[in-house]
Amino acid sequence: MGTTQLETVPEPKYWHLKTVLSEALDSEFTVGEILPNERDLAARFGVARATLRQALEQLELEGRLQRRRGVGTTVAPPRVGVAVGAEQHAWPGAAGDVWQPVDCTLEVPPAAVAAALETGEQPVHTVRRSRTTHGQPVAAELLYIAASSVPELSAIDAPSGAARARAVLRELQRLELEGQENAVELGSARADDAKELDRLPGAPVLVVTTRYISDGHTAALSVATYRADTCRLTFGDPGGVEIHHDPERRAS
Amino acid sequence: MGTTQLETVPEPKYWHLKTVLSEALDSEFTVGEILPNERDLAARFGVARATLRQALEQLELEGRLQRRRGVGTTVAPPRVGVAVGAEQHAWPGAAGDVWQPVDCTLEVPPAAVAAALETGEQPVHTVRRSRTTHGQPVAAELLYIAASSVPELSAIDAPSGAARARAVLRELQRLELEGQENAVELGSARADDAKELDRLPGAPVLVVTTRYISDGHTAALSVATYRADTCRLTFGDPGGVEIHHDPERRAS
Repeated sequence: MGTTQLETVPEPKYWHLKTVLSEALDSEFTVGEILPNERDLAARFGVARATLRQALEQLELEGRLQRRRGVGTTVAPPRVGVAVGAEQHAWPGAAGDVWQPVDCTLEVPPAAVAAALETGEQPVHTVRRSRTTHGQPVAAELLYIAASSVPELSAIDAPSGAARARAVLRELQRLELEGQENAVELGSARADDAKELDRLPGAPVLVVTTRYISDGHTAALSVATYRADTCRLTFGDPGGVEIHHDPERRAS
Repeated sequence: MGTTQLETVPEPKYWHLKTVLSEALDSEFTVGEILPNERDLAARFGVARATLRQALEQLELEGRLQRRRGVGTTVAPPRVGVAVGAEQHAWPGAAGDVWQPVDCTLEVPPAAVAAALETGEQPVHTVRRSRTTHGQPVAAELLYIAASSVPELSAIDAPSGAARARAVLRELQRLELEGQENAVELGSARADDAKELDRLPGAPVLVVTTRYISDGHTAALSVATYRADTCRLTFGDPGGVEIHHDPERRAS
């Protein structure tokens, strides 16, 4: 890398350092390689540790670096494109669904979920599902389904766990799906999601909320937490066009 | 708020503190209200300043708090839903486009953009646009257009700035749009975007990349930077269904 003095640059030091580091990552490091420790890096670039840390945090936000428990800071592979938002209207659990049911419980959801489902203090079916890409967990979902959306369910002799989840989703598919609303926003990983996604609690995540609408009401609400470090979420209608995908980087 | 001792809780202290603070925000504070200073808050909850800061950072990631330059930490309003990804295929600048052209230059784009546009070392038209919601800037866009996508442009006597941008977009609309690909990922605000969006450089942002495809190639590439603190990005096909929108909160 060589020593680079950043003293004379007018923009914030950590910002310029970020650019310099980013170029060094491209030219001198390979994906998965562990970075030298902070003291060595700071000395090499002639910056304070605090400045170095700011630059490393930026690069982590941009997906260039990964902090991994017990490993250190490594050079991240390009983010994986993960499709969100069904191109066709479909209930969760319908053919082609990429999510795997894990568990199903009956519990009172957070207030915002109860408001969306109009279930008040009533418990709702809470299906936990996970999504993997290339064998790695990329997202964890909580899917809330109002009991009134699956009125026949109590008659079914469904066991607990994943089997129960599948029974709930089968029942849900009897309803007519009128539409769905998707939104994505920034969030922080809850402790249980973080564990499943191999992240630290509080790590930045992308939260995709989907409202499944039937008969003018929200019949089910999905809150899916995606790893923000490794995923780029693709959405919308590609119009059936196939183009060559270059490993894409955020313009910097 | 009262004093709450958190010593006996087994989960990370800042995590529990975050939950307690979140409830306090709901019950005792109004939107826009300035939080007490860190020292007072830390004393009140019986935690170290470092623990308090971690909890405040989480709440900022989740959009509950805003750090504002020269103001301090305030209680954030609910995030605003901002639609991304055209429901109909349309070139940028077509009727109904929400973006306002600001400027247009001819410059060599970042390497990743050049790779997507297959323009090598050639300069490309770089249109800068901005998007506002309720009078507030919510996003800044760089729209890269290969010179070969607008071959007739040199014949047009277009001035610089926004007028030039409009001329470029008009030319682009002559091509047949075959499809578009959208992706959203986490990023950090570049200094110029940060200034336009009233954020600090490096603040977490949501970066929406759109490839506009014509004749099997990427004719134009948009990199749009949205404020992650105030925006939730809505996308996909709502199926024409209108439902009542509750102020929605991320389930915590």
